[in-house]
Formats: sequence, structure tokens, C-alpha cells
Amino acid sequence: MREVAVIGVGMTKWGELWEKSLRDIFVETALLALDDAGVDKIDSLVVGCMSSGIFVGQEHLASLLADYLGQAPVPAARVESACSSGGLALRTGFIEVASGMADIVLVSGVEKMTDVSGQEATYVLGTAADQEYECYHGITFPGLYALIARAHMEKYGTTREQLALVAVKNHYNGSMNPLAQYPYKITVDAVLNSVLVADPLRILDCSPITDGAAALILCPLELAKKMKKPLVKISGSGQATDTIALSSRKDITWIESTFQAAKKAYAMAGKKPEDIDVIEAHDCFTIAEICVMEALGLVEKGKGGKAVEEGLTSLKGKIPVNTSGGLKAKGHPVGATGVAQAIEIVKQLREDAGPRQVKGARVGLTQNMGGSGGSSVVHIFERG
Amino acid sequence: MREVAVIGVGMTKWGELWEKSLRDIFVETALLALDDAGVDKIDSLVVGCMSSGIFVGQEHLASLLADYLGQAPVPAARVESACSSGGLALRTGFIEVASGMADIVLVSGVEKMTDVSGQEATYVLGTAADQEYECYHGITFPGLYALIARAHMEKYGTTREQLALVAVKNHYNGSMNPLAQYPYKITVDAVLNSVLVADPLRILDCSPITDGAAALILCPLELAKKMKKPLVKISGSGQATDTIALSSRKDITWIESTFQAAKKAYAMAGKKPEDIDVIEAHDCFTIAEICVMEALGLVEKGKGGKAVEEGLTSLKGKIPVNTSGGLKAKGHPVGATGVAQAIEIVKQLREDAGPRQVKGARVGLTQNMGGSGGSSVVHIFERG
Repeated sequence: MREVAVIGVGMTKWGELWEKSLRDIFVETALLALDDAGVDKIDSLVVGCMSSGIFVGQEHLASLLADYLGQAPVPAARVESACSSGGLALRTGFIEVASGMADIVLVSGVEKMTDVSGQEATYVLGTAADQEYECYHGITFPGLYALIARAHMEKYGTTREQLALVAVKNHYNGSMNPLAQYPYKITVDAVLNSVLVADPLRILDCSPITDGAAALILCPLELAKKMKKPLVKISGSGQATDTIALSSRKDITWIESTFQAAKKAYAMAGKKPEDIDVIEAHDCFTIAEICVMEALGLVEKGKGGKAVEEGLTSLKGKIPVNTSGGLKAKGHPVGATGVAQAIEIVKQLREDAGPRQVKGARVGLTQNMGGSGGSSVVHIFERG
Repeated sequence: MREVAVIGVGMTKWGELWEKSLRDIFVETALLALDDAGVDKIDSLVVGCMSSGIFVGQEHLASLLADYLGQAPVPAARVESACSSGGLALRTGFIEVASGMADIVLVSGVEKMTDVSGQEATYVLGTAADQEYECYHGITFPGLYALIARAHMEKYGTTREQLALVAVKNHYNGSMNPLAQYPYKITVDAVLNSVLVADPLRILDCSPITDGAAALILCPLELAKKMKKPLVKISGSGQATDTIALSSRKDITWIESTFQAAKKAYAMAGKKPEDIDVIEAHDCFTIAEICVMEALGLVEKGKGGKAVEEGLTSLKGKIPVNTSGGLKAKGHPVGATGVAQAIEIVKQLREDAGPRQVKGARVGLTQNMGGSGGSSVVHIFERG
């Protein structure tokens, strides 16, 4: 297998982009990534998108986007793994470059979520759960994560304030990210007094509904060296699944798919949790980030809430998590999130993250998750 | 890159399977393929499916199916390229094995189309076209292919009878395939007198709405040799895109994406059109098979209709096309079609195709197409 580098990144402001269509936001970010990489032709396109079919009535998405970018007849694949579709796109592109099938691969993530009503969006997001065994009976995603949060509080003594501190930290980081949907600081009080969504989760525990896209250019590491690009290589890639229905899990506070995906990525990269300098994790709800820290091996089982309280994952902490603002502040266009996570890590490793730079970061990790942990994708990046 | 072999195939009867859910038909075929390969664990799962989101309200599909098959925490990816999703799944699995990331990969295609009304199914299939530039203005897929048919008739003198002969040939072949949705012979008269759908296409020019799944097991060729499996290797894989909207093409009678994908597959395999012994082609409408024969280089531009009339592609002809019955007789569960095409070719190369066996077939080709040719995937298979 060939070693793989990221040589271009592209992202635009996320939010409620009613004036732009899905294809517009894809093309804007793809052109930025091509420009950053200094290339104008690609050998392959991989697009991560969860549900363009229901959100905007469009399947055959990769073909449409290759065409609209002016890159036909390039091979083009759309991949889907719910909210980890972006991470899966990165993995698919990584494998394609590693295999030798393609040299320059454009990896994109995109989702246009605000062309439907909030109620409809909740239905679409529910298609990431087991419809027949979960959603038909009335549960929604905030409900599923509320069950996880309640179980974590009961089992480990995690507090309501610790949950809130995840959102406060991520909004603090996000306040320094001009591309974030909500680049504003919030307080613990604001979280605790925000509207109740599914007890114990309040609206400020939840990532928002977002339109957005993000793009990366991958190529063989040797080619990146010849092109004299800043060297960021992907040294580990792991993906894993778990029961899609929360009700089938032995322990709903433990995200086994993230544990398994991380195990593979760590092994491939020859790294341990303590080697990681900066992390982008899937904080679709505040409780998710706490569970993910545990599954990644950053803290012991049950200690995630305490660790946030102690500042372990703050920007100045030992292992900063979600320097971009995370899904909470940056927004969560579901198919794009995994790709945007990689962009933040690449910026950090290039020392190009501005006021949210983690000094001397050399190894970064992204963790992207589908549904309530039915699938996870973990990647490890290193300065080349 | 490692050489890749197919060591297992699995398919069940296709049709209107109201008593089974999507996950049931996936598992049935996956178990058959695992059994045929003689393995019980896989390293990776790739699922081709066009629109489980709209058809059955379920995304996060690969995770759900990995779980239901009892294979979690296996990595699992769903890929989508409209009606060529199955072909794309095969290509994605091929690249994964070739790269060294996985040894045993289960490649599946699945679609459950009859849980919605016919009108709704027509809407869903329309998401394979450019919704904003085509479908919003009223066109449907039979309409798009009717435009192609009319243009081919005008430009090259292709006759209404020649179109009908494609359906007659494929139903003749399909009558020998017990897994086909419509394993019945039909006549030219029956086609010409069937209900008009979109002039000049009649109902017997159109592939049906189908529930179905199909599965393959891939592994490195060296491993297949050690396992003493019948050796069928994948020697070429090409994918390409074109404008998704028919209105953007220079010549709507020419399927450029198939031409480009075939060019890559022929080059990778070191083969020419005349080296191919048996073909499964994407006859979603009778005119499609005629255009595809031309784009694959089997006949000159414009000569596809005449070639069918002369029997070139009949079971006893020089290059048999759609020995399985094709999409027309076998059925067309859109995400499964590309995988089922590969199964037929593997059976032919194993000399295991029963009464529809092409004697001495050593090299086979599959051509799977999305929409009106917005994407195409071509694979070449050889006896190992």
C-alpha cells in the first residue's frame, strides 16, 4: 500500500444557506481544495452524503457533482454511513490512493438539510437509526442520546453541569472559527436554562441542523513531496460497526464501534492515545463527546465527564478536543462533518489554525460516528 | 495492487417480495454467497443501494446489514450511483482487496422497491436524473429513454421491431433462469401490442420494478488458489461519469460514460471487445442495450439495432448479451443489478449456467449504468 497525504483543503461558511443549492456548496468547497492543492484535474471523486435523496430529492449524487464541477468523465462514488458518511468518504479515498487505482482524489462531504422543515429533518435523521425497531415506535435522535446520557449519569455520576461544559468548551473554540455556524461563546447557565429537548438534554446540548460542504485533496505521499506541499499524511484508518439499534447493546454508555475503529487506526499508525496532540470528535450531543473520549482511550470508562470538568480537553488542556468548535458550534451537515473534521486536523498540523492553534501539534485524530454509534470511522494524521 | 478473485456468489428469486423486508433479502443472499465461498467471517462489507432512504425510510444501511448478518464490528460501507450502485459496490470491494486493506470482502447489492406505490417508485427513480433540470419539468425515465430511442431511430434507421427483438432475446434467455422475476418467453408481436408508456417505448420495452438482492465474496487471487476455489478473477475495472442531464449531451444516442469506463477496463485487463465471450449489459430499456453495444465497441455506432436483428448477441450468437435474462426479464432492483450481472458472468466462467451456458466462455464483461448514462461501471472477468 502507498502512503497517502492530504494536499488540499476547502471549506466555506456553514449555516442555513437557503440561497444556495447542494451542488453550489459542493463546488465552492471543491474549488477551494483544488486551489489549495494547486491541481486542476482529479483522477477520482468520492462524496460522503447521508440523505440527499430525502433532503433534496436527488440520488446519483456523485455523478451530478462530478458533472457540475466540470470533471466528468472522472470516476465518482457517493458513500453513505449516516452521520459518518464524511469519514467513510475519507477512508474510501484513502484506500483508492493507497491501492494505486488513483493519484489525485477529491474527497468531499456535503449535506443540504434546511430545504425541509425541522420536523421532516428529524424524520430524515431518524433513518440513521433502525427504523423498524426504533423510530416506528416514536424515538428520535435526541431521545436516543438522552437515554445514553441518563444511563451515564446513573452509572458513573456524570453531572448535568459536566454535559454543559462540553458545549461551553466547543462554543469557546468555535468562537474563533469564522466558518462555524454559531461562532459564539455560551455559558453553563445558558445551557442549563435552554429549552428542554429530551430530558436531560437541552437545546444547547444538541448540534444544529446545517447546510454545508467540505473538501480534501488526497495523493500519494511521494507525489506530495515532489509537489513540495506541506506534508500531512494519513497514517491510520479504522472503521467499525455495532448494532444499529441502541436497544441491542450490552451497555449503552459504551461506544463499541468507536473503540474498534480506534483500535485499528492506532494499530495501523503505530500510535497510542497518549501520542495524540489534537482531536476532532463527534459531539452530535454533549454526552456523545464524553462517551467518545472514553472509547478512544483518552480517559478511563466513566471518567469522561470529570475530565471535561478538569479541562483535559480544553484548548490549553493536555488533549484538546474539537478545536474547530465541533459539531456543536461549527454545525453538523451530517455528510460533511467527517471531512470538515479532517480539515481542522490538517490545519492544526500545518500550524495554520490561527487563534485556536494547538502549539506544536504533530499527531491528530478524527472520530466520526453514524447514528447512536452504529458505525464509527477513526483516522490518524501526522506531519509527514 | 493484488489480483482479485470472486470465490462466492449468492442470489435468490427476484420479484415483488412483499413478505420480506430489505434486511431479509440481503441476509438470504449474503449467506448463500458465504456458503458458496466456504467462509463464515468477512473483513469488510460493501453494499450497493440506490435509495433505501426514500423506498423504505432507512439510511445507515451498511451498518444495519452488517449487524443483521451478525458480522459487526466489521467495517461496512454503502455506495450509491443510482442504478449502477451494484457495479460501484463491486468496484469499491475490488479496490479494497487490491489495496491490501481487506482479504475477504462481501459485496452486496440490494433494493426494496415495491413497498411504495408505482407512482412513488417513478418519483424515486427520477432522483437518478437531474431533479432540478429534468424531473421538476415533468420528465420520467421512460420519457428520457424514449427521447434516446426516437433519436436513434431518426439518426440511424433503427426500427421499432429491432427494439422489440432486444426484449424477446432477453426474455428467451430469462426463461431459463429460475431466479428471474419474469422467466417467460415473449414475442415481437407481444411487445408491439403492449401498452404504450412513452412513445416509442411500450411496457415490454421497460425493465420492471423489483425487490431483490445479490451477493459476491471477493478475496486475493493467491488466497483463492490456496482455498482451491474455482478461479474467476476480476482483471479490469472502469468507472466513468457523464453529464447527468440528457439535455447537456452532444449526442443523446451515444453513452459516453460506458465508452470511457469500458476503455479503462479493457486497458487494465489488456483486452479488446473481440476478446469478450459473454456480456451482461444494462438493458433498463430495450434502446439502452442497443446504445451500450455500440459504446462497448461490439458494433459500429448506429449498428446496434441491426446487430440484434442479425442475432449477434443471441445465446448462440458471436457475443451473447444478457444470458441471465437481463434487467428486462430477470428484474431490476436498481442497487442489486450490478452485482447480479457479475454473478451471471461468474456462473458462465465456472461453466455453471445450465441451459443458458455459453460454451467455453473464458472472458466475460459486465456493464452497469446509472440514470440515462450519467455514470457507468464496467468490469472484465477471466477464468484464473
